[in-house]
Amino acid sequence: MSTSRRKLLQLASIAGGTLAAGAAPLGSADDPAALLAVFAKRQTVRRYKPDPVPEEHLLKILDAARRGPTCMNQQPWTFLVVRDKAKIDAMKKRTLDLVAKFVSADKKEAALHFTEGYFTAPVYVVVLVDTGCPCTGYAQRHDGPIAAGYLMLAARAFGYGTAYLTDGIPEQVTREVLAIPSQYQRICITPIGVPDHWPPQVPKRMLEEMAAYETLEGHPALKALPYNP
Amino acid sequence: MSTSRRKLLQLASIAGGTLAAGAAPLGSADDPAALLAVFAKRQTVRRYKPDPVPEEHLLKILDAARRGPTCMNQQPWTFLVVRDKAKIDAMKKRTLDLVAKFVSADKKEAALHFTEGYFTAPVYVVVLVDTGCPCTGYAQRHDGPIAAGYLMLAARAFGYGTAYLTDGIPEQVTREVLAIPSQYQRICITPIGVPDHWPPQVPKRMLEEMAAYETLEGHPALKALPYNP
Repeated sequence: MSTSRRKLLQLASIAGGTLAAGAAPLGSADDPAALLAVFAKRQTVRRYKPDPVPEEHLLKILDAARRGPTCMNQQPWTFLVVRDKAKIDAMKKRTLDLVAKFVSADKKEAALHFTEGYFTAPVYVVVLVDTGCPCTGYAQRHDGPIAAGYLMLAARAFGYGTAYLTDGIPEQVTREVLAIPSQYQRICITPIGVPDHWPPQVPKRMLEEMAAYETLEGHPALKALPYNP
Repeated sequence: MSTSRRKLLQLASIAGGTLAAGAAPLGSADDPAALLAVFAKRQTVRRYKPDPVPEEHLLKILDAARRGPTCMNQQPWTFLVVRDKAKIDAMKKRTLDLVAKFVSADKKEAALHFTEGYFTAPVYVVVLVDTGCPCTGYAQRHDGPIAAGYLMLAARAFGYGTAYLTDGIPEQVTREVLAIPSQYQRICITPIGVPDHWPPQVPKRMLEEMAAYETLEGHPALKALPYNP
């Protein structure tokens, strides 16, 4: 069987599965605990093992990404999957060149090591929105980021790390190396892979500082709160 | 026990649970299928039953919302929870007045009925970002929408419907009725509740039309694809 034929069959099986399941509401037998645990376990991962991500996992992760809310059902997403080592190395070289150029001498070595870690994953997904869609502003400000967020959560469910990178791998780098036409607006790029290690949990604000009931009167402003940069 | 004391204990228990779990990676014993099914089952719900959403569920839903990626760990979110019937009715009246004023006569009745459905839920969450955060642009374009998307997914795991409303309940309406200061930027407002019915699955583009491998050359542009408004 050809690769493209196999891919089509995989896609068809995913689509069929989700459509059938989607028609019925979640019954009381479903336990939301499994899902809720995944939210808290998603973390930014900055260095990866070279272990490959099976195509089957990748397709299910992308399938989850496209399930987000989308203005007028426009579904403006394109997921550009990059596994070609030459392309990854080209993005790495350009990004490290920028770090070397703009980071001050005393911080350069650490910054280069940190940034080099982003390029250790076996696969990258550039999350793009097509600005030819009916609601372009919504695609960029809502549909796009939500899809990227869903992608990362689904990847975590499979045990993979991700990183929602914007400045970490500059848009211009991906645009040039991957020849992304101007019609596509980049939301972010994320590595997907087995983490070199799971980083320690980052300190988080208390939920009670974020939830307000009925009114914002007396609600603590963010700038008044302890902040962990 | 006072309400606020009980709420604090609930919050502490949530925080404790997620922190402990978050320290360890998902083991192979975890089955991602339960999570992936929820993505495909999330749908926009436009009319609700009056059944209340227990505080315990709401807190877990908000806890999931704040687990999204966030620029420099700024966590700029405020979740304004509205259950006060007088406030909901005031938002409804103002929104329906706008529909009555701007929708053409032949479509007015249907539009009023459609919009009235948005106000049938027992609870609303206004997802806000505090523009006093270090990366304001990222808060509005990335952190905010992802948190709202996570909220909706978590709500679906509990069996609730949501709707990512922007124009559906105009920002100005929420800002005036709920006295939201200009420092807070609204991302969206969503009802949360038991659906009056689960709507039929909306037609979706095939995943193969969205995934591109290594290059966008030959990738079908969105405007060339069948589109369901």
